[in-house]
Amino acid sequence: MKNYTKLVNQINRKKTFLCIGLDTDRKKMPEFLLKKEYPIFEFNKQIIDATHDLVIAYKPNIAFYESEGVEGWKSLQKTVEYLKSNYPEILIIADAKRGDIGNTSNMYAKAFFENMNFDAITVAPYMGEDSISPFLAFENKWVILLALTSNKGAFDFQLFENINSERLFEHVLSKSKTWADKNKMMYVVGATKAEMLKEIRAIIPDHFILVPGVGAQGGNLQEVAKYGMNSNCGLIVNSSRGIIYASIKEDFPEKARLKAKEIQIEMKELLNNNSVL
Amino acid sequence: MKNYTKLVNQINRKKTFLCIGLDTDRKKMPEFLLKKEYPIFEFNKQIIDATHDLVIAYKPNIAFYESEGVEGWKSLQKTVEYLKSNYPEILIIADAKRGDIGNTSNMYAKAFFENMNFDAITVAPYMGEDSISPFLAFENKWVILLALTSNKGAFDFQLFENINSERLFEHVLSKSKTWADKNKMMYVVGATKAEMLKEIRAIIPDHFILVPGVGAQGGNLQEVAKYGMNSNCGLIVNSSRGIIYASIKEDFPEKARLKAKEIQIEMKELLNNNSVL
Repeated sequence: MKNYTKLVNQINRKKTFLCIGLDTDRKKMPEFLLKKEYPIFEFNKQIIDATHDLVIAYKPNIAFYESEGVEGWKSLQKTVEYLKSNYPEILIIADAKRGDIGNTSNMYAKAFFENMNFDAITVAPYMGEDSISPFLAFENKWVILLALTSNKGAFDFQLFENINSERLFEHVLSKSKTWADKNKMMYVVGATKAEMLKEIRAIIPDHFILVPGVGAQGGNLQEVAKYGMNSNCGLIVNSSRGIIYASIKEDFPEKARLKAKEIQIEMKELLNNNSVL
Repeated sequence: MKNYTKLVNQINRKKTFLCIGLDTDRKKMPEFLLKKEYPIFEFNKQIIDATHDLVIAYKPNIAFYESEGVEGWKSLQKTVEYLKSNYPEILIIADAKRGDIGNTSNMYAKAFFENMNFDAITVAPYMGEDSISPFLAFENKWVILLALTSNKGAFDFQLFENINSERLFEHVLSKSKTWADKNKMMYVVGATKAEMLKEIRAIIPDHFILVPGVGAQGGNLQEVAKYGMNSNCGLIVNSSRGIIYASIKEDFPEKARLKAKEIQIEMKELLNNNSVL
């Protein structure tokens, strides 16, 4: 089955388009976990077991694992293995923002797609097509290209405008959509720029859009759905801190589930209202 | 002593501005090394011992280490430790092309500057100032921002032009040079675009420029110096594959030294001709 169809099926079955960001930080987790051999993995495992039926994707933020060195890297591998063994239908996104010359991008693709079996990776567009194509060369994997990000700095370069009033992020979208179709490529558009999803949908009506920034970063789910949802949903909305750190006590999995459930209920309604379900 | 002065002193003392890229690939190294406990580190150590007096910097390409998982990460740590213990004056650049929202960039900065003691990191500009500033917050460390890269894909977005005929890479230079001075910031400009160094020098006359792409990628050292050298040199020119894989037999350190020595002699002449020495 095609990548795209698998994702749409998951949305229809679970009635959600939530992704939980595993920005797992040793300093923010309940103390009792620190006694375990792999506290970061243990935290992730408990979050996953408590929320897997409410999400279509998990998104480990690679920086958080790299900042823990070898142990972080092991915890990342164990998290991916655990997901693949127990919840194989769930999309696993490496939030890595990589991108380099061809032979180097190929090494990153091997690291995340082959050695670790991630399904998708976020990639930065600055270095152009030959920095992206090595990721696209892997079968049944996704490239998620940065278009318009959720942070303040997005305004520094992404809105840089040419003589035809085309902005850089629009140029990235229109150029890159010829490199791969909706089965291989998605885009990052921050929830903090929800109203701009309307113009973006005019360029890429069918592609999935990964939307970070709901919750801690201030984005609004209703707005995102209003401007960004298409007939197959076409959205993966990420929340990290608001869910995984809902409690810092032993009840953190239950509290995370409550937060995720709240969002899933809102999402189900949005899917119904927009006739996706 | 300031970052900038330390680098200029090293150039004057060693009469070179060479950086060797440690794009270390298990498949390309002499077979006898594969029996060692850390083959990738062992390869790097022998390259470093054979070339340290001919270079001002080493640049591990992080993708090559990540593609080896935990063992690659350990080899990377051991390489940085070995350099810091034995050749502390040499600049160590993490060629990582990172860049993300503030709290995530901060995690990457910790990974490379704190846990691993790199001196510098390459960063992609797409996400703007707040994705760069967490790296700049670390004292005595360098940010090396992508401006105009050496690959074909550089033409896809980096030359995107506004109504005043300012191109994206020029906009990146003029905007980002207000974020940090020549003691904290450098730029990547590919050797394959050497003639464009002239226009770039008009925007950033004093900053160091890291120039990849000499050798295997086709860049020319004479051209780079002609258009890019300033009164303090202002250049770090990288060569990777042409040096470290000069031989794939047991004599690889000597052959690497010969290649590096050839380049250093050419560099010394260029430094003399341009009255840097």
